[in-house]
Parts: sequence; C-alpha cells; structure tokens
Amino acid sequence: MPKSQKTLNELFHDALKDIYFAEKKILTALPKIAKAAQSAELKQAFEKHETETEGHVERLEKVFDMIDKKPQGKTCDAIMGLIEEGQEIMKEYKGSPALDAGLLAGAQAVEHYEISRYGTLQTWAKELGLGEAVALLEQTLEEEKITDATLTKIARTAVNQCAEAA
Amino acid sequence: MPKSQKTLNELFHDALKDIYFAEKKILTALPKIAKAAQSAELKQAFEKHETETEGHVERLEKVFDMIDKKPQGKTCDAIMGLIEEGQEIMKEYKGSPALDAGLLAGAQAVEHYEISRYGTLQTWAKELGLGEAVALLEQTLEEEKITDATLTKIARTAVNQCAEAA
Repeated sequence: MPKSQKTLNELFHDALKDIYFAEKKILTALPKIAKAAQSAELKQAFEKHETETEGHVERLEKVFDMIDKKPQGKTCDAIMGLIEEGQEIMKEYKGSPALDAGLLAGAQAVEHYEISRYGTLQTWAKELGLGEAVALLEQTLEEEKITDATLTKIARTAVNQCAEAA
Repeated sequence: MPKSQKTLNELFHDALKDIYFAEKKILTALPKIAKAAQSAELKQAFEKHETETEGHVERLEKVFDMIDKKPQGKTCDAIMGLIEEGQEIMKEYKGSPALDAGLLAGAQAVEHYEISRYGTLQTWAKELGLGEAVALLEQTLEEEKITDATLTKIARTAVNQCAEAA
C-alpha cells in the first residue's frame, strides 16, 4: 500500500500494536515495582493493577480479533522510556524514605500514557464503526482512570510519611 | 550523600530537571509538528502551544531559583520516546488523510505525560512548603489540561474528515 493511502484503519491497527506492547511490558514490570514498594497499601495497589492489566491484554486480543488481525506488539519507545525511568528511581532511591513517592510518580506517568492511548483508540474505533471494540476500550480506560485516582490518593499519604521521615 | 538519605527535596529536584529537559525538547519539536499538520486549526493549536511552552520553561526556571538551584535538564527517556513516536507518524503517514489524527494522538500522549509530571511536582511542592512554586506549577498544569481538551476537540473533527477522505 503506498504511504499516501495509509488510512485510519492502519492508524488504529498501529496504535493497537503499540498499546499491546506497552501492556505486556507493564505486566513484566509490575511485580518488580510491587516488590520494591515500601508501604503495604502501595504493594497491594500494584498487585491489584497487575491482575487488571492481564484483563487489558485479553481485551486487546479481542479487539485484534474484531479487525481480523493477529495480536502483535510493536516496540513502543514511550513505555520503554517510562519503565527505564522507574528502574532508575528504584536504584537511586533504594532505602530512601522518598522511594514510594518516586515509584508512585512513575506509575502515574504510565497510567496517563495509557489514558491518552485508550482515549485515542476509543475515538478512532467509534469513527470506524467498531461498536464492540469501543465498549472494551472504554472498560479498560475506566480502570486506568480509577487506578490513577487510587495512586493520587496513596501519593498524598506517601509524601506525608516521606516528609515526616526526613 | 548516601543513597538512603535521598529525600523528597532530591526527588523534587530530579523531577524538575526531568520536566525541564522535556519542555525544552517539546519546544524544539513543536515547529516541525506545526509544519507537518494539514489542517489550519491544528497548525494554529501547535503554534499557540509553542508560545505557552516558552512560558512553561520560564516558570520552571523560577522554580529552580526558589530552591536555589541552577536550571538544568536531565535526559528524560519518556519524552525522547514520545517524540520518536511522533516522528515515525510524520514519516509513515506523510500525505495520508490520517496524518493529522496521528499527530494529534502523539501530542495528546505528550500532554498527558506533562499533566502527570506537573501534578506530581505540585503535590511535592505543597509538602515541601514551596507555596510560590505550587502556584507556578498550577498555572502550567491548567494550561496543559486546556491544551489536551482543545486537542480532543480537534481530534474529533480530524477523525471525521479522515474517514470521509478514506
């Protein structure tokens, strides 16, 4: 297909591969982040999100199926960068009272990346008349927003404890 | 300073360097993205955001000053990845009716990255008792949210036109 003919269908498929790669990377990173977290509340939040993320991957596989494509990831530089930054925090703030605050910030950046991607995918799915895909993407989008809100709540507590320890 | 002593002050300073680097990268990328955009409305939105971003850089320099630090960037892998993805879209969708939709998706991912970072910085500045910094970070956060909302609005139009052209 000549470049000039690449359409919204292609864009949707490309973005689907991008977020599929990202969700799988997140699934690999979450147990390590949960292990590193100091507070029980934060550990639990990461573990809960790991289970949810498994569901997000399954939903994406259904969306691939709806457009007659095989589930396939495409390297997503953004998520690689975000995970890299999280790993730096884990290393540099190991044993520090600020570790949880740093991990939370990294996790919220990931959530916002996903919120933007699922929002975009949903807009495109609507335009392409993929009603069932819109519903699946909406479910994941809502879960990502709830996770972000939970992390914001935990971040306020973490930052207080962190300041008290300083 | 031993690693275990790294505190919220350090985390705040590190995150400030990260977003300072990101804003400067965005400032370099925006004119290219504005040039690539097909619709006049999108071009204008990117140009407006370029002017705003100059203001964001200046505000960050003031915040550095408030904590007695020299404004300095630190490579932010996440923004490098996001800009890399935007460049791929520009190349792969050049001349395609889906180009603007792709550029918009990339720009919204950048906005969400910034929204998450400014939200975090603001929480930390509050805890550190940096009242003036909180106010400056809040101004930028609000502008990023407005930009994201504007892009969402343009995205709906772009995607309609894109589907009509397909």
